[in-house]
Amino acid sequence: MLDGMSRVTVARKVRRFADGAFHQVPDVVAGEEPLEIRAGGRTLTVTMRTPGHDIELAHGWLHGEGVIAGVGDVRGASYCAGSDSDSLNTYNVLDVSLTDPAGADVGAALDRAVRTGVTTSACGVCGSASIEALRNRTRYPLVPGLPAVDPAVIAGLPAALAERQRGFRRTGGTHAAGLADSDGRLTVVREDVGRHNAVDKVIGAALLAGGLPATDQLLVTSSRASFELVQKAVMAGIGVLVAVSAPSSLACEVADDAGLTLIGFTRHAGFNVYTGPERVVGALESPGTQP
Amino acid sequence: MLDGMSRVTVARKVRRFADGAFHQVPDVVAGEEPLEIRAGGRTLTVTMRTPGHDIELAHGWLHGEGVIAGVGDVRGASYCAGSDSDSLNTYNVLDVSLTDPAGADVGAALDRAVRTGVTTSACGVCGSASIEALRNRTRYPLVPGLPAVDPAVIAGLPAALAERQRGFRRTGGTHAAGLADSDGRLTVVREDVGRHNAVDKVIGAALLAGGLPATDQLLVTSSRASFELVQKAVMAGIGVLVAVSAPSSLACEVADDAGLTLIGFTRHAGFNVYTGPERVVGALESPGTQP
Repeated sequence: MLDGMSRVTVARKVRRFADGAFHQVPDVVAGEEPLEIRAGGRTLTVTMRTPGHDIELAHGWLHGEGVIAGVGDVRGASYCAGSDSDSLNTYNVLDVSLTDPAGADVGAALDRAVRTGVTTSACGVCGSASIEALRNRTRYPLVPGLPAVDPAVIAGLPAALAERQRGFRRTGGTHAAGLADSDGRLTVVREDVGRHNAVDKVIGAALLAGGLPATDQLLVTSSRASFELVQKAVMAGIGVLVAVSAPSSLACEVADDAGLTLIGFTRHAGFNVYTGPERVVGALESPGTQP
Repeated sequence: MLDGMSRVTVARKVRRFADGAFHQVPDVVAGEEPLEIRAGGRTLTVTMRTPGHDIELAHGWLHGEGVIAGVGDVRGASYCAGSDSDSLNTYNVLDVSLTDPAGADVGAALDRAVRTGVTTSACGVCGSASIEALRNRTRYPLVPGLPAVDPAVIAGLPAALAERQRGFRRTGGTHAAGLADSDGRLTVVREDVGRHNAVDKVIGAALLAGGLPATDQLLVTSSRASFELVQKAVMAGIGVLVAVSAPSSLACEVADDAGLTLIGFTRHAGFNVYTGPERVVGALESPGTQP
C-alpha cells in the first residue's frame, strides 16, 4: 500500500457487552505500527506510531533530539525498499539522508538514546546533573513574554483541537497535538497513538514549512504533559505548552528552568498555569490565597 | 531521602483560571524522575517513572524484556552510591546483580533496545517478520479458556481500580495497573506517570511474590492498550488484559496471535472483547449483527 493514511484506522469486529448481554458489532481501532528512523542507513530509533505523516514525524523527532536544525540539514528521506513475506513494502523504515552527516549532531542523538536505550554511560542519572544530561540543548532561547495570550483563548483550545480530532472520534484511541497562534487559530493538527509522535509530527510540519522557531505559537496536546513533551516544545522555541490533562513534577521543573509557560488541566473553561505566568494576560497579578 | 515514596507527589503553587479570573492555589503534581536500570554495571534502560516500588519496576521490566525468568535469577538490587551536587543520593540508579550474568538473556534485552534505542540492525521493521523481531518470547504459553471470567466482574474492574488510585485522586496525573483474580479481587495495584511502568511494577510485584505465570489473573490498566502492554501481559502468562480505554490495531493483532483475551473501553458497565472471547463467559455465543 502506497499511502500510509489507509492504515490510520483498522476495522475489526468486536463482541460488545452492554446492558447485560453480548452482541457482535463492527468497531474501528487506531492504527499502530513500528516506524524505524534511520540516518544514512544507521538506525536511530524505532517508534510505535500511527502510519501517516511519517516524514514530518522523522523531521520532528530529529529536531527534538538535536540532530537537525532545519530543513536544510536534510537532503531527502525515503522508505526502505525492503518488503514483507507478501513482497509488499510496509513503509515502516524511513531512511533520512543528512546534508552533512559529519556535521549533524548524530552523535548527540546516539548519546540521548541512554534515555530509553542502551549505553555504557558513567554515573548517568545519579546526580542533579542527570536531568541536564537527559536534556537536549535548544537552539532557540525562549523569548520572555512572547506570545502574550488571552486566557479565554487558552480555555478554548481543547474544544478547537477536539473538532479536528477525526481519528479520535472514530477510534477513541489517538492523542492529538496542534500549533495555535495567540488568537487560538490552529495552524496544524496531527493525531497518533503516541502523544510524543503527535507532537513530533506537528513540530516536523512546522519545520518543513519553515516555521521554526515557533516563537509566537502555542503547542496544544490532548494528553498529559511530561518531561519529554516540555523538552520537545523548548527545542522548537515554543513558549507556551497547553495540556488538556496533568503535568508531571519534572515537566514543571524543566519548564521553570527553560522559561516555558506550562499550562495543565485545560478543561471546563478553566486551566492551571504551572510556570511562566507572564505570558498569560492577567495571570501574574493573580491574588494569592496566601501572601 | 531514603524512601522514594516521599517523591510520589510534589506540591506546587499554581495560578488557576476559573470563572474568568485568576487565583493562586496549592496544587499537587505526580512525581516524575528518571530511573536507570543496570545489570552488572551496564545500563539497560532509563525510564521516566514515579519514584517508589523501583525494585518491582526493575524486576517487571527485566521479566518483560526476557532477561530474567524468576526471582532466582536476581541475586540482589542496590541503588548506585553516587550523589548529586548536594551530596544526596537521588535513588535514581538501580543496579541489579544477576545470578548468572552469562546465562541470563541480557543480549536479547540489548537487541530489544532496537525498539526504542540505537542499533545497527539489518532490515529491522521492513517486513512482516518485523513484529516478530520486536516481540519477546514468552516462557508461559497461555492456557486456552483460563481464567473464565464473568462479564459482570470485568465491568466492575475499573471502579475497583479507581478506588485504589490514591495518587490519581491527588494529582490527576498517574496511570494505574492491577492484577485481579477471576472474582474481581485486586491482589496488587500500582500507580505511575507511565502506564508501562505501572504494569511493570505490578508484574514485578507478582514475580517477587512467586506469582508468575499469573495464569489465573487478569491485568487491568487505567489506560489504553498498546502493543507494549499486550506483550508484557503475554510474557507474564496473563490470559486477560482489561483496558479502560482503547486498544490499538497492533495490540489486537498481537493479542490474537498470542491467544490473549483483549478487552477495551471498559466503562459504563460495558466493554468490548477484541480477541479471545472464549475466556469471557457468554461472549463466544454473541449473536452477530451479521452472519
